[in-house]
Amino acid sequence: MQLKSITYPACPGGPAHKWAQPGIRCCPGRMQNSKSKPCSCPSLKLREVVSMYFTMVAAFLVILVVALQGSVPQESDFPYTVPLDPQGLLELSWNVSYPEQAVHFQLLIRDLRFGLLFGMSDRGEFENADLAVLWSDGHNSYFGDAWSDARGQLHMDSQQDYQLLGARRAPEGLYLLFRRAFSTCDPKDYLIEDGTVHLIYGILEKPVHSLQAINVSALHGGLQRVQLLKPNISIPELPSDMKTMEITAPDVVIPSQETTYWCYMAELPEGFPKHHIIMYEPVVTAGNEALVHHMEVFQCAAEFDSFPHYNGPCDSKMKPERLNYCRHVLAAWAMGAQAFYYPEEAGLAFGGPGSSRYLRLEIHYHNPLVFKGRRDSSGIRLYYTATLRPYDAGIMELGLVYTPVMAIPPGEDNFILTGYCTDKCTQLALPAAGIRIFASQLHTHLAGRKVVTVLSRDGRERQVVNADRHYSPHFQEIRMLKEVVAVFPGDELITTCTYNTEDRSRATVGGFGILEEMCVNYVHYYPQTQLELCKSAVDPGYLHRYFNLVNRFNDEEICMCPQVSVPQQFYSIPWNTFNRDVLKSLYGFAPISMHCNKSSAVRFPGEWEKQPLPRITGRLREPG
Amino acid sequence: MQLKSITYPACPGGPAHKWAQPGIRCCPGRMQNSKSKPCSCPSLKLREVVSMYFTMVAAFLVILVVALQGSVPQESDFPYTVPLDPQGLLELSWNVSYPEQAVHFQLLIRDLRFGLLFGMSDRGEFENADLAVLWSDGHNSYFGDAWSDARGQLHMDSQQDYQLLGARRAPEGLYLLFRRAFSTCDPKDYLIEDGTVHLIYGILEKPVHSLQAINVSALHGGLQRVQLLKPNISIPELPSDMKTMEITAPDVVIPSQETTYWCYMAELPEGFPKHHIIMYEPVVTAGNEALVHHMEVFQCAAEFDSFPHYNGPCDSKMKPERLNYCRHVLAAWAMGAQAFYYPEEAGLAFGGPGSSRYLRLEIHYHNPLVFKGRRDSSGIRLYYTATLRPYDAGIMELGLVYTPVMAIPPGEDNFILTGYCTDKCTQLALPAAGIRIFASQLHTHLAGRKVVTVLSRDGRERQVVNADRHYSPHFQEIRMLKEVVAVFPGDELITTCTYNTEDRSRATVGGFGILEEMCVNYVHYYPQTQLELCKSAVDPGYLHRYFNLVNRFNDEEICMCPQVSVPQQFYSIPWNTFNRDVLKSLYGFAPISMHCNKSSAVRFPGEWEKQPLPRITGRLREPG
Repeated sequence: MQLKSITYPACPGGPAHKWAQPGIRCCPGRMQNSKSKPCSCPSLKLREVVSMYFTMVAAFLVILVVALQGSVPQESDFPYTVPLDPQGLLELSWNVSYPEQAVHFQLLIRDLRFGLLFGMSDRGEFENADLAVLWSDGHNSYFGDAWSDARGQLHMDSQQDYQLLGARRAPEGLYLLFRRAFSTCDPKDYLIEDGTVHLIYGILEKPVHSLQAINVSALHGGLQRVQLLKPNISIPELPSDMKTMEITAPDVVIPSQETTYWCYMAELPEGFPKHHIIMYEPVVTAGNEALVHHMEVFQCAAEFDSFPHYNGPCDSKMKPERLNYCRHVLAAWAMGAQAFYYPEEAGLAFGGPGSSRYLRLEIHYHNPLVFKGRRDSSGIRLYYTATLRPYDAGIMELGLVYTPVMAIPPGEDNFILTGYCTDKCTQLALPAAGIRIFASQLHTHLAGRKVVTVLSRDGRERQVVNADRHYSPHFQEIRMLKEVVAVFPGDELITTCTYNTEDRSRATVGGFGILEEMCVNYVHYYPQTQLELCKSAVDPGYLHRYFNLVNRFNDEEICMCPQVSVPQQFYSIPWNTFNRDVLKSLYGFAPISMHCNKSSAVRFPGEWEKQPLPRITGRLREPG
Repeated sequence: MQLKSITYPACPGGPAHKWAQPGIRCCPGRMQNSKSKPCSCPSLKLREVVSMYFTMVAAFLVILVVALQGSVPQESDFPYTVPLDPQGLLELSWNVSYPEQAVHFQLLIRDLRFGLLFGMSDRGEFENADLAVLWSDGHNSYFGDAWSDARGQLHMDSQQDYQLLGARRAPEGLYLLFRRAFSTCDPKDYLIEDGTVHLIYGILEKPVHSLQAINVSALHGGLQRVQLLKPNISIPELPSDMKTMEITAPDVVIPSQETTYWCYMAELPEGFPKHHIIMYEPVVTAGNEALVHHMEVFQCAAEFDSFPHYNGPCDSKMKPERLNYCRHVLAAWAMGAQAFYYPEEAGLAFGGPGSSRYLRLEIHYHNPLVFKGRRDSSGIRLYYTATLRPYDAGIMELGLVYTPVMAIPPGEDNFILTGYCTDKCTQLALPAAGIRIFASQLHTHLAGRKVVTVLSRDGRERQVVNADRHYSPHFQEIRMLKEVVAVFPGDELITTCTYNTEDRSRATVGGFGILEEMCVNYVHYYPQTQLELCKSAVDPGYLHRYFNLVNRFNDEEICMCPQVSVPQQFYSIPWNTFNRDVLKSLYGFAPISMHCNKSSAVRFPGEWEKQPLPRITGRLREPG
């Protein structure tokens, strides 16, 4: 290995990870002439030469370890693991160094052929992706940082930001170790942010003579969503009287179809007193790691004395109607997530009077290879204590009311709807000492692409509560926040959802249906308050003015009869740029109807109609 | 000097300018937590250490020359020169290397005190500026790349992009030589783009103990606008029969006031036949280099047989009315500009029948220090030939019609108006072989901040004709284009102007007045065609609908009586976000009225009302 032959500027941060790259100072995204090559810096050739030092030149069967072994992270250093493919042939482990602002990856390749691609892209597409590539021409093997263009053609990156740290042959397969900074100066690189990251992989099944010969569209590959930047939270001390309870599937046969939502009803013992759940973790049947996509435990509504037992698909006609009343989330896990810990001062109450004994376990099995006869007993293990902690934890719903007045025109790639929890509501409903939000679960239906909640105080944005700029409706986890967010009376919580309706031909209105939309952030907080829901929607009177305006402006070609429902009015709009833009302007201007609700959909007393939109004068800087 | 003690990665581009900096790879602008320090890379300290190598540690009176003398550009290598301050104590020379994508600066400081600041900012403000700083604590002197924050506080830049190449004491003062790449990876740095660059300077009059001790708001300093990225155009061969003619002020006394526009009438000889102007250059009276801000020579309208002689301020009540008919630009120069050359195949016709013998010279004297009794005979030297070139050059007006229907709401920091030259007009008016645009002069009134013209073909933007993203109405030059732009029948030319009306309390409408606005690009091209004006404005019927809509949506609080003028209607709008946004949407949607005009304001035959807006499906990438 010639790595040591380059003189790098010395790194002040200690001996670990010395391989800061030589000077790469060009920012091609800022070049002026869009027709020129993306990077026209004079030192381009230099960089290409340098990048060759990073290529690994050795046959696969030889054990490869980079010379700088002392600083290569050990396997035990990778606390997070996820299978990439449905067969589990590729397994990714990683750790996150916040001081270094970098991720270290360990990729286990169980059945290596002629190489593989691993990388990241905005939403899991293979085009415009940022890729680490290991490839073999049949004799030698190479490693490099590459990117794919809009047609899926691979190009060697002028700046090598996937840094190979080592490779190791073991009985189970080849391990590749590499490092990637969250943010690089290279506009071809993916910016690793909080929230969902779409990982992609592709397998090379034939020798390739050069990187440029690879067309990613033709590859066998796939996609895995993970939260790469796990929060770095210290685990609270657990009490000695802690007990566990497993809510698991009763040895079910996973249906041989791509997608199954399995429902199983469990029951707490009769007379089970109030406890605090203080932690929970997944229980995944060995061998099914790549099939169990996510799991949730819901508590049923207390108003029913009993619920039928059920064990079967959630969408079956045989499923009793009453199971729809089991919607209060007790625990949720998704692939790649670890144990969930409540903060030391709080626990989630369950058991006791006023609380249902019935629990519903829901498991999403993702079985794209349609394996048959796989048995599964996965579920969630709850850790709970009878020694109640000082505070009950609560869940509050932020965002938009489920109403058709909030709608998205068809053909939009990037339409934003905003839901408000106003100062007036928090003033009334929160205790003077405030509440602490420690976790959050974002929720939209199929058109959702981004969800962000920001805390604003005195008209200025102060803190991001939770942001997922690569949000996928197929990957909804409860996520611990990196920083607990304190919310005081008078604060505002503003939730924006970004939607893509490019594949739709009529408007998408708000509502419960899978083709309608939602914009919700379920925030987990303590101490519990009466405020269960703090959401908004545009004032219906102003929306009516909008329909009239559209009518008049467009030569009254359409009849906006008032007896027609709001969805029907939206469906009949001719969607030109003017009507789209004015709808956006309306949502950014018209007063709102606030839902500042206690449990059971009872509003706090006060005037909640035609409320002014919160005025934001100072914004947080956007990343990227 | 310790510069040589660092091992830099070798540069493949030859020996010149070896001092590429060591690896600085952090892009703080892309970090996620806006509350954290802007740059949280682990190698920050490394960089600070490295930057110390770039500081110059020596007393001013010692002759300082960097060890790498062979590669330091010679003085003769700086073709462009401009005084920075009104007294001419600071003189900037520079050259532009397009292969290196860098500018080399030579700054002459005639009366050095305890240092100075030189740099660039968006519009010449001292806050949020990118600065090279030379400072002395009374014993030693230092040089560094710094930036000022929103409060004017200086900070050392984590990435040193003003690279000191040398310093030299000469009888006339101290010369500093330094280099700056157009684009760096540092978000604190100014991106050097085509068009206007606002240079700023400040003088340190006391010793300072550290960079952080400097508050730029308290400094004696100023602003100079230049076109830094001069085009790299080869000079066409000049004919042997070339003659010259100087249109210069007749030894006038520069008025002792900050701003004077001086008008002087000149006359061509009787019977002067048609010639081609093939070049012109400034003639600036020695000593007045810092006072003569810009100069233009206009030809008067041919329909008047004679024009009165006049020599005095252009805004004087004594100025004859008829001088307002001398508006056809023959030549224009602004500070920092060099000679203007017509392309080899073309010249600007003057003289001969159908052309006025009368010329008006206009000189803008900028005299902020209010010097008294300075005499001046500056002007422009025309180079012309009787051997006519193959083509007459022409000037065409692109952008917006001068009409109040195009308006800007008050309080906008960034409002865009767009003027179109449509495919239908170019189809009709341009020859099949097309025209070649070789120069451009952008024009707005006081609210103008950016002007960009883009060529679009088949709905896709193809080429920027001219762009000035730091446009100032106080610096209007005719600029040679870096690349000649060929425009064919069916092409579209789209001119967007960005305005700032934050200091205004009522709408700014289009028109001729200094507080009304224009959006114009005068393009210089050949061969001359009949098309003199290709501009647009929104359809007045749609604007009327907008006024009605605003009326209805805002509870009919205002009366939009049809007998009221368009400016009055705009002035009576209550400017909330909805009314602003909908005006933007209207301008982006409503059909246009096209002015596709021959000389004398005669339209080409055809239907030009209620034309569809050009559809743009592919855009050029924005720089930065």
